[in-house]
Order: sequence, then C-alpha cells, then structure tokens
Amino acid sequence: MGPMVPARPGYTRCMVHDAHERIPDSHRDLLDARFATLATVGGDGYPQLSEVWFLAEEDQVCISLNRARQKTKNLLAEPNCTVFILDLANPYRYLEIRGTADVTSDDDRAFADRVGAKYGADLRDHDLPGDTRVVVRVVPVRVNAVDMSR
Amino acid sequence: MGPMVPARPGYTRCMVHDAHERIPDSHRDLLDARFATLATVGGDGYPQLSEVWFLAEEDQVCISLNRARQKTKNLLAEPNCTVFILDLANPYRYLEIRGTADVTSDDDRAFADRVGAKYGADLRDHDLPGDTRVVVRVVPVRVNAVDMSR
Repeated sequence: MGPMVPARPGYTRCMVHDAHERIPDSHRDLLDARFATLATVGGDGYPQLSEVWFLAEEDQVCISLNRARQKTKNLLAEPNCTVFILDLANPYRYLEIRGTADVTSDDDRAFADRVGAKYGADLRDHDLPGDTRVVVRVVPVRVNAVDMSR
Repeated sequence: MGPMVPARPGYTRCMVHDAHERIPDSHRDLLDARFATLATVGGDGYPQLSEVWFLAEEDQVCISLNRARQKTKNLLAEPNCTVFILDLANPYRYLEIRGTADVTSDDDRAFADRVGAKYGADLRDHDLPGDTRVVVRVVPVRVNAVDMSR
C-alpha cells in the first residue's frame, strides 16, 4: 500500500492516485469530514500525530490549536506538516495534504468559535484560564488523493 | 485536541493519556485493527503519511513494504517514524507509536505472506516482477494512548 505507485500494466490492484496542489473532486467530500490526523515534526525528528477537529476554508484545512500544545510548538519551529483525512467508512480512501502551517493568533477565539459551531462544542471547554489559541492554516504544497478500493 | 495535555483541575473534558514505551491494556485491542497510518519524514522535511496493512508481533507493529516505495526510501534514510492506529468506530481513541524503523529484507516474502494471511490477500499482487519487499519493524520509543471520549 502507498500513494507513490503509478498505475502500470501488470499492476493487478492499482490505486487511483493523483498528486496536485488542489483537492480533486473525487475526494472533495473528505473536506467535510469530522476528523483529520495532523502530523508535525518534533525537535527530536519524530513525526507527532494526533487527531484533530478542523474546518475547510477555500479548500484549505484550518485547525484551532491551544498555543501551549506541543504540536503548536512544533509547527512554530518547523512549519512543514501534513494533514491526513481518512474516509472512516472506507479506509482505503484518503487525502494526504502536505503543506506549510500558517500560524496566526486567535485571541478573540473567532475562529475557535467557528470550529465549535461545526462540532456543537465550545472549544473554551478544552482550555485553561489564560490559555490562548491560534489558527493553523495548512497551505498545500502537495496533495495526494488515494483510493485503493477502486 | 491533542495527546500532550495532562489532566488538570478545571479541565472539563480531559483526555485519558498515557505515555509509555509499551501498549497499555486500554488500547491493546487496536493492535488487532486492520489499518494503521504510517508517518515517515521525507528528505524535504515533510511528513509522508499513508494507510498501511500491518501485523502486531510481540506488541510491535510490523509492516511489509515494497522496497521501491518512497516511504521505504524515507525510512532507510531516516528511521524515525510514527504509527498511528485509529479506532475507526471512535476516532477520539487512538494509539500513537513513535519509534525507530528496523528495516530487514524479506526476499522470500515469508513475512509478506503472514501479512497476506491476515488480510486474505497475496501481496505479490501489489508488486511488479523484480520488486522486492522489506519488513519494517517499528521499535517503540514512545507510545501515546489517547481516549478523548472518556
């Protein structure tokens, strides 16, 4: 399994794979999914992965993070990151979005409230007094749309 | 959301989070899952994520990869990697296993056949003539067991 295999003769179970900077129509529905996996790279060189809520805005994945979290610190030090959106009903199908994290303050939590509206939640419930939030916009560098079930 | 937050007073929706080098009993069932996300780091510094089949052997995740794949090349150049096993029925619950990839040859495909037995598949169907396979054993450095639904 893997997204890097071109369809070639003799490949009996080839995957549909497209690499773009844009989300192909075949996988656009995944932008409405409820969960994504965010991968950052820590100072020790290991990928750090965690499941996150997100909003898609103009085809870009935007995530509200508490500034105190390790993944936020990772992104501020190293903005290269990847968002992975799995079709939970068909895990052979997913979007891998490699991109650069554009991190901006969300001091009034205007963005966090938009995320909360998607999930019927108040993100303040996840924060401690004094915590602040940032908006992480993942600007795509490469998009891999994979479907190994076709 | 994120695995790095200790439970603290005032945290109204705290997650259960344990960091170990071993798989805690609470999440051991995920070793029997059918899908994992493998994160490697490419030469360009971006995490590369893809969905993979795997076998758990002695609590370690083992993956059969075609040697020609980019993720295999990434691991040979940079063995730091992360395996992420999501509970597809409850995506608030997952295992994040950061580890070092121990890559060995599987020229006779003995391991690939064991993986195939789990999935009722023949991994040769994914290879071209002349392709070879490796076993990737992820030796854990840190295990995060997250359950935000509790």
